[in-house]
Amino acid sequence: MRKKIKKINAAILVIGNEILSGRTQDKNVAFISHWLNLNCGISIKEVRIIPDDEKVIIKNVLTLSKKFNYVFTTGGIGPTHDDITAKSISKAFKVKYEYHEEAFKILEKYYGIKKFNDGRKKMAKMPRGSKLIYNPSSAAPGFMIKNVLSLPGVPSILNSMIENCKRYLVKGLKTHSKTINLYTVESNISKQLGLIQNKYKKYVEIGSYPFFRLGKIGVSIVSRSNSITKLNSVKQELFKLAKLKKIQIFKV
Amino acid sequence: MRKKIKKINAAILVIGNEILSGRTQDKNVAFISHWLNLNCGISIKEVRIIPDDEKVIIKNVLTLSKKFNYVFTTGGIGPTHDDITAKSISKAFKVKYEYHEEAFKILEKYYGIKKFNDGRKKMAKMPRGSKLIYNPSSAAPGFMIKNVLSLPGVPSILNSMIENCKRYLVKGLKTHSKTINLYTVESNISKQLGLIQNKYKKYVEIGSYPFFRLGKIGVSIVSRSNSITKLNSVKQELFKLAKLKKIQIFKV
Repeated sequence: MRKKIKKINAAILVIGNEILSGRTQDKNVAFISHWLNLNCGISIKEVRIIPDDEKVIIKNVLTLSKKFNYVFTTGGIGPTHDDITAKSISKAFKVKYEYHEEAFKILEKYYGIKKFNDGRKKMAKMPRGSKLIYNPSSAAPGFMIKNVLSLPGVPSILNSMIENCKRYLVKGLKTHSKTINLYTVESNISKQLGLIQNKYKKYVEIGSYPFFRLGKIGVSIVSRSNSITKLNSVKQELFKLAKLKKIQIFKV
Repeated sequence: MRKKIKKINAAILVIGNEILSGRTQDKNVAFISHWLNLNCGISIKEVRIIPDDEKVIIKNVLTLSKKFNYVFTTGGIGPTHDDITAKSISKAFKVKYEYHEEAFKILEKYYGIKKFNDGRKKMAKMPRGSKLIYNPSSAAPGFMIKNVLSLPGVPSILNSMIENCKRYLVKGLKTHSKTINLYTVESNISKQLGLIQNKYKKYVEIGSYPFFRLGKIGVSIVSRSNSITKLNSVKQELFKLAKLKKIQIFKV
């Protein structure tokens, strides 16, 4: 008998005043979500963006870690005063915030004993009992404690570390998706689309997104499901609908 | 006596599977946050991204509308089956989900009676008692009910409508910001920066963000405050720090 793979979900907690203020455009949510589904079959079900505020971080870490299988935090693990993620998570889980022996060694080796100042040492402090998420681009590791994985906010560094989260994650059912682009407007197909969604509501999630491309208006119909067979059935229904309504399909 | 202006805050609730899955990169959060601060002196304090799921929408609308002065929702107000924002907000506030007379007239005029089909009519349905947020680019209005303002997800349409939210918003204290770019690494200044932050903790929020520009590594020090005087004091302290540490300042 084939081992049954379960649905595994996760949340992302983006920690950073710079994202909230609009100064910085977040790029990590789309990257993590895409990577997790493709490589681990894990679906992101909620994202929260919150300020660098200890109380707020503690509250959200506790809420999300109870609600989802995993929580990924981004931001706030650097050397400056506004980097309070590790300390806040220690408080949330009521464990000591202390030097992680291996992280300390990694950073000491990377900077050399002479240049290993207090700011840099701070990056080796994390919740007691953390497992390290290695950082191939700038040495300072992320960490995992309970079901929470903490990564930095700089996208290029985060991207280089994500592969090292894999070993800690239980794999789930991958969500497959299929996009059909139709040269029409949403309101021309909304009724029929609703009927198709209703027919497949147990298996397939259908989304409809208007687009403007090469001066033409269209709608991307995105179907998402754990079953490729069901996705193909929906595709056939959409082809039938397009034929019936004489709608041109945009091939990519 | 000058009228005292209060701090006003808000949250953004992004509704859409396509953002959670990573298919679409959100661009509305940075835009709304920036616009609100600049034009209305309102600060975004939390953002949540959630799926097109009625129960989840209801829960989050209620939580955020209690916690913040305003809530902005984006997405889910189009003509298709996955557009359930208006219906869900009606349920959240226990009011009827029905045709808004003026919205109906606007859309009927825009499409013409013959082309005003069921999908398009759906866009005139909203929570009873809603005030309209006019849409100069594609007619279908957003709406405000209690302290919740609902806007569409397509960035170009949202951007064209945001000005029409202004009349419904109480103005607050604007947050000013000043950025000083230093050619150094965070750990070289983290200690002194922490001391400056501590000295001004009541008035100024200082953030430190590494950057890579023209092949050089640097740190952007972003100070944010309601007081320009305090911002200037922090700027002077940063200039002193740069001089002391012989750090070059990057002028933009």
